[in-house]
Amino acid sequence: MGKLRQFEKPTGFRDFPPSTAAKKRLVERRVQACFQRWGYREVLTPTLEYFDTVGAASAIPEYKMFKLIDREGKTLVLRPDLTAPIARMVSSVLKDDPLPIRLYYHASVFRAQDDSARTVEFFQSGVELVGDPSPEADAEVIALAAEALSACEISPFQLAVGHVELLDGLLREQVEDPQQVEQLKACLGARDVVGYKERVAQLNLTPEGKELLLRLPHLSGGKDRLESLRPQMRSRRVENAVRHLWEMWEALEDFGANRHVVLDLSLVGSLHYYTGVYFEGYALPSSFPLVSGGRYDRLLERFGRPAPATGFALKTDRLMEASPAADQEMERVALVYPRSARREAIRRAQELRKEGKAVILQVADDPDQRTEIDADRVVRWEEGEDGRK
Amino acid sequence: MGKLRQFEKPTGFRDFPPSTAAKKRLVERRVQACFQRWGYREVLTPTLEYFDTVGAASAIPEYKMFKLIDREGKTLVLRPDLTAPIARMVSSVLKDDPLPIRLYYHASVFRAQDDSARTVEFFQSGVELVGDPSPEADAEVIALAAEALSACEISPFQLAVGHVELLDGLLREQVEDPQQVEQLKACLGARDVVGYKERVAQLNLTPEGKELLLRLPHLSGGKDRLESLRPQMRSRRVENAVRHLWEMWEALEDFGANRHVVLDLSLVGSLHYYTGVYFEGYALPSSFPLVSGGRYDRLLERFGRPAPATGFALKTDRLMEASPAADQEMERVALVYPRSARREAIRRAQELRKEGKAVILQVADDPDQRTEIDADRVVRWEEGEDGRK
Repeated sequence: MGKLRQFEKPTGFRDFPPSTAAKKRLVERRVQACFQRWGYREVLTPTLEYFDTVGAASAIPEYKMFKLIDREGKTLVLRPDLTAPIARMVSSVLKDDPLPIRLYYHASVFRAQDDSARTVEFFQSGVELVGDPSPEADAEVIALAAEALSACEISPFQLAVGHVELLDGLLREQVEDPQQVEQLKACLGARDVVGYKERVAQLNLTPEGKELLLRLPHLSGGKDRLESLRPQMRSRRVENAVRHLWEMWEALEDFGANRHVVLDLSLVGSLHYYTGVYFEGYALPSSFPLVSGGRYDRLLERFGRPAPATGFALKTDRLMEASPAADQEMERVALVYPRSARREAIRRAQELRKEGKAVILQVADDPDQRTEIDADRVVRWEEGEDGRK
Repeated sequence: MGKLRQFEKPTGFRDFPPSTAAKKRLVERRVQACFQRWGYREVLTPTLEYFDTVGAASAIPEYKMFKLIDREGKTLVLRPDLTAPIARMVSSVLKDDPLPIRLYYHASVFRAQDDSARTVEFFQSGVELVGDPSPEADAEVIALAAEALSACEISPFQLAVGHVELLDGLLREQVEDPQQVEQLKACLGARDVVGYKERVAQLNLTPEGKELLLRLPHLSGGKDRLESLRPQMRSRRVENAVRHLWEMWEALEDFGANRHVVLDLSLVGSLHYYTGVYFEGYALPSSFPLVSGGRYDRLLERFGRPAPATGFALKTDRLMEASPAADQEMERVALVYPRSARREAIRRAQELRKEGKAVILQVADDPDQRTEIDADRVVRWEEGEDGRK
């Protein structure tokens, strides 16, 4: 191994200088204000988890996890997501708290990347609403995601909402072979509509079935799209999903959030643990998600406290880039003083700090010393002055 | 390996439920307000660093580090402290920023423990002031540490301030064998005054030298203690250190911080990279440090940008326990509504949120459903009501 350069940091890891760190704080503060107003409370989980518990329950594939072995020989992973650790927490530390429970977090997650240029430690802010199976709960997290994006001044943005059971159900009603269903979903997940249609064309289907599947990638819009499905529904599973989405849409109307939402019935969940409503949010015209989330009703049972759940994670790093928001920063004043004026300079600094300014005190033995100072305003005392200028 | 219980987390790692997470936020917010008013700016560094750079430069012994191997075969460590990463950052990302530079951080650090009951991931909030060799810089960080402890309502507290060069110089002026000097420092570091005195008694010293070394553990107080050393100073090193401490004390008087400070000339730096002033702060009568810090003038050169530096780290976990501070929390209101009153309930929630309240919306199809809700006030709609009660 060659000698490392002194300033090197591991591949895919980043330093945040003051300007970037301040933007991260801004985004986190704004989304946190939303989470708190909606009754969510912050929790923290460890950076390391057991592979056998959280690692195995996580939706992140094993090859993307950072692993290490502890002194007892157990395999640990750097937290690949927050949903599994919080599910663990709800089932242990918080096991006596009644459901539903509303939690939020700000944390970094770690995912090894094939492409060495990509970030491996990145930040998420998210919520988990555990214990509520209702369409209102799905509408709540979607409306809250919309409020969080608005709070970061993302405009315009759109939330695409699908339903993994509905998509799976519609495909299975027409296509018997589960492997073919998975292949169709893989095309949709990769947004390969051409490939999807080619595959559909090759399948042995009824004319109505073929027509439905070909229409699926274009079934996006408002709740009328659900109406158009009704004649084709054949299974209870699809019926239930359509009813759930319908109720959710009406709740979104009540939240006033439906104007940001487009139903996209061909949307494929990004993680395998989703069991119902799934959504992604974009700053238009980008198609890079700033947020993704949805319902995961089967995860909690893996930790011994079966409960329905829904939530989302904002991708903080992308949100920092997409957000034009800026806060009025504290004015930075530097007081440069000779030692003889120290007491006076410190007193003045204390006054200015009380007024809400950031004050840098800098002793300069040489009055002509012209140090460059990171401040909006530099006040220099001269020998013998009282500094009140 | 036995089957792990579903709720297990790795030894020494902790979950923070909402009450604990809120206390951590409180402490961080309050100390951060101090750091910002004094002109410090936040930075973030990666959770993982190269062992060969930051790991080797860190003052934390190698056996306490969590190591892993990356895909390129390089050894990574979980951040054992923040001072070395920030030194790396000042020498790389921030290399064009003029000195002095003032930075702060909130972050977790990782230290493997022999005792499995002890925490291995804990939190620190701290500052680094890079590029200022003056006694005023040392006084600034000590006064800022005092302001941070006050902001957390720690009362009374005391900051013990020593000087690693002064202690080493005084011992070496009397004791020729460097190994014996190290043994004496080990006794002082372990607060084993009896053992220290026994060792001193066995040394072959002049009567004045013996008297001085026996007096050393009791040399704590104000700047008069420095005065009492003057007749015994033999080396430039000791003279310079005494002059530096004297100036620093006068600056602390100007800050009005000297009332919290006791000079303790037998204080041994907790980490090997300290080169001058060293200090620790306690909530009296405890002797468990809530903060420690000092001058480290030789660390930056290891990253290619030689510069004097000083700073401190608050031990956030201990501070959370020691601080009696509590903030007025947002009132939590729960609105429990039947589906028929959804629109009205959501409208009411939006009004209450604008008024600064945290509002939990809960649909309850069964009006008699008496879910336990984590709220200060529960408002229940009855079927057909307008919810304005």
